[in-house]
Amino acid sequence: MATHKKLTIGLFGFGVVGEGLYKVLQQTPSLNASIKRICIKNYGKKRNAPASLFTTDKNELLNDHDINVIVEVIDDANAAFEIVSTALQNGKDVVSASKKMIATNLKELLQLQKQTGKSLLYESAACASIPVIRNLEEYYDNDLLHSIKAIVNGSTNFILTKIFEEGIDFNTALLQAQQAGFAESDPTLDIEGYDAINKWTFLLTHAYGITENPENLLFNGIQFIHATDSETAAARKQEIKLVAQAQKLKNGEVAAFVLPQFVKQEDHLAFVKNEYNGVVIESGFADKQFFYGKGAGSFPTASAVLSDIAALRYGYKYEYKKLYHHQPHQLAKDFFLKVYLSFDDINSIPKEEFEWIEEWHAQKERKYLIGVIAYQKLKNQTWWRENGTSLILLPDPIIEEVASQNIKKRSLELAGVL
Amino acid sequence: MATHKKLTIGLFGFGVVGEGLYKVLQQTPSLNASIKRICIKNYGKKRNAPASLFTTDKNELLNDHDINVIVEVIDDANAAFEIVSTALQNGKDVVSASKKMIATNLKELLQLQKQTGKSLLYESAACASIPVIRNLEEYYDNDLLHSIKAIVNGSTNFILTKIFEEGIDFNTALLQAQQAGFAESDPTLDIEGYDAINKWTFLLTHAYGITENPENLLFNGIQFIHATDSETAAARKQEIKLVAQAQKLKNGEVAAFVLPQFVKQEDHLAFVKNEYNGVVIESGFADKQFFYGKGAGSFPTASAVLSDIAALRYGYKYEYKKLYHHQPHQLAKDFFLKVYLSFDDINSIPKEEFEWIEEWHAQKERKYLIGVIAYQKLKNQTWWRENGTSLILLPDPIIEEVASQNIKKRSLELAGVL
Repeated sequence: MATHKKLTIGLFGFGVVGEGLYKVLQQTPSLNASIKRICIKNYGKKRNAPASLFTTDKNELLNDHDINVIVEVIDDANAAFEIVSTALQNGKDVVSASKKMIATNLKELLQLQKQTGKSLLYESAACASIPVIRNLEEYYDNDLLHSIKAIVNGSTNFILTKIFEEGIDFNTALLQAQQAGFAESDPTLDIEGYDAINKWTFLLTHAYGITENPENLLFNGIQFIHATDSETAAARKQEIKLVAQAQKLKNGEVAAFVLPQFVKQEDHLAFVKNEYNGVVIESGFADKQFFYGKGAGSFPTASAVLSDIAALRYGYKYEYKKLYHHQPHQLAKDFFLKVYLSFDDINSIPKEEFEWIEEWHAQKERKYLIGVIAYQKLKNQTWWRENGTSLILLPDPIIEEVASQNIKKRSLELAGVL
Repeated sequence: MATHKKLTIGLFGFGVVGEGLYKVLQQTPSLNASIKRICIKNYGKKRNAPASLFTTDKNELLNDHDINVIVEVIDDANAAFEIVSTALQNGKDVVSASKKMIATNLKELLQLQKQTGKSLLYESAACASIPVIRNLEEYYDNDLLHSIKAIVNGSTNFILTKIFEEGIDFNTALLQAQQAGFAESDPTLDIEGYDAINKWTFLLTHAYGITENPENLLFNGIQFIHATDSETAAARKQEIKLVAQAQKLKNGEVAAFVLPQFVKQEDHLAFVKNEYNGVVIESGFADKQFFYGKGAGSFPTASAVLSDIAALRYGYKYEYKKLYHHQPHQLAKDFFLKVYLSFDDINSIPKEEFEWIEEWHAQKERKYLIGVIAYQKLKNQTWWRENGTSLILLPDPIIEEVASQNIKKRSLELAGVL
């Protein structure tokens, strides 16, 4: 068949993903790819590969002219960026699995790809085995992509599933997630939404040409979800998920955020349980597509890394079409969100910040309200992240415009009721 | 960014898919692809494109040295094969949407791709907007792919959904499908399973390296599904779907067929309603992945054709890894299937053909039994396709071995009961 570029790989990292990859490459001679050298942090433990392969000197890989591909599966985002940027500058193609590194260095990495003409692939960094980046790149034209909604973090989804299906509390669910290996011993990155927003940062680039720093995007995790909230969800025949969402507004801008959200039982995302990930893409062309699979773990990650390596053989590069070949979309700032808030003390809630409040429940100790608030207020204010307040979006949470008379009327009602 | 091959396209067919494609290509100059000539059957109707583009002489496209890509979206499988084979021989890459043409000429098309070194892509021919071929090619290594289960025909799935959810009969559901545009006026190809087995034929090649003619595979459609069957399904909290299945057995062979199947409500495929398609891939590496989307229609098809065109710019070819780079799998013949049969007259059922019968229900006029029968008997015998008999597989229908003493015991039971 076709002749392919022979790939000589320098591998950084020999944890579960790196070792899995090493094994699979050995068993797949047809790939025409072999690992020449493996860089590890220290020689400490016994490795399941010939000792001669290993080095602790990164330059032995980065300066080796034989090596034309660097595969990087290490944990340290700063070290990863140094490796990846040097590799590109040294004329090597790169496969990376480091979501944080990619999200926080996105603009530099885009620049480096342009300058060097080399390929940087990172399918494994978002949703692991689900080929979401490749699909966004190749299947959706700029004008056709209406929205993406996704569950991109398996740990929080595992915890939410346990809370919801077994009625246990957050801490017990977190412990179970840790025992099952789906949450780190320090789970902050997952639980507080950092991991999800990192992935969302570069998925927004491939989907809409948006290049924002993760900290400029509105996000939160599931750390404040209260037992009352899952009761409310169940009563409404809904579930709570940590949803990454992006939606094109009428003005062409894109509303994007990662927040807990009530999800209807018939929603595709309700199908996504435990440690799985799911992506729902709505487009004018292909209508609704739903991708579902394991979003993390050594094998799903190694599988995605492998597919990137396979793609390098025929010179595949991300084109960032939405960024370079179209007018990139702007991140929307002027829109409203329909939110549910639960809290212990109504005095901790600045009611006047809301456009209107349409439900108000006082029950047991815990109270909740449902109202509409400007995106900018959530983005800029911090009260909703404090005092044990829990904020969850309603299904279809985006409201593009609010009629002013409506607000006034509702505000009057609000003044009377609350 | 990267420089790509400039694609000059000769398009065959200007129906809804062809016209949609023409429009999108005009709006996407970044693709660096333009349609030079369009071949149609006759000039009869007014077309939404400059008259100078059209011709009825296929050779004006096939012999044009400027044209380096032929895109073929016509209905006639014989004409399509002539176009595609000539185009490859004339040194052009080809994108085709003709599932029947591909399935029935698979070996010749493989040979032609080898001989000419040209690329033939046909992502749109199976599950349209779901990138199933590309995923099977790139994400699953030979030894890792345990099974695929899929709903690949939207018309029959629409009908089954209506029967099941609205309790209407087959003919009414078929009429609704035709009115909604999801079934042809002659729906035989869909209803009797030909369309599904055609798609399954080449998906088996990409998944397992199997190259069988469609008529050598065991298949049936939904034409004999009886109202009793959906009642039985509902009572068992299951649904009936037309399932294309392939599963690797312990001996390394692959059991494959397309038959109606009872599907548990928690099965991924139960999620697939109406005209949608779904694919569940189980692998050692990525665990279970589920792809869901529109499987037919002009826009989903055009969207898949477009992604193939985009892939040609960087010289993408199917590698048929499972066929050429590995020992291809053999189609299994020695295994057993657990089936449900409903019928009016027990005398029409050759009970002695079963390994054993484990359930037997006489109710109203319609009776049913559940038993285990050798694959070969279903493949070679025709009684189950006659006399208003309805055959539906049970969930997890494949039984690799049956213990002989078990058979004897069960047969004795059977002799006593029936």
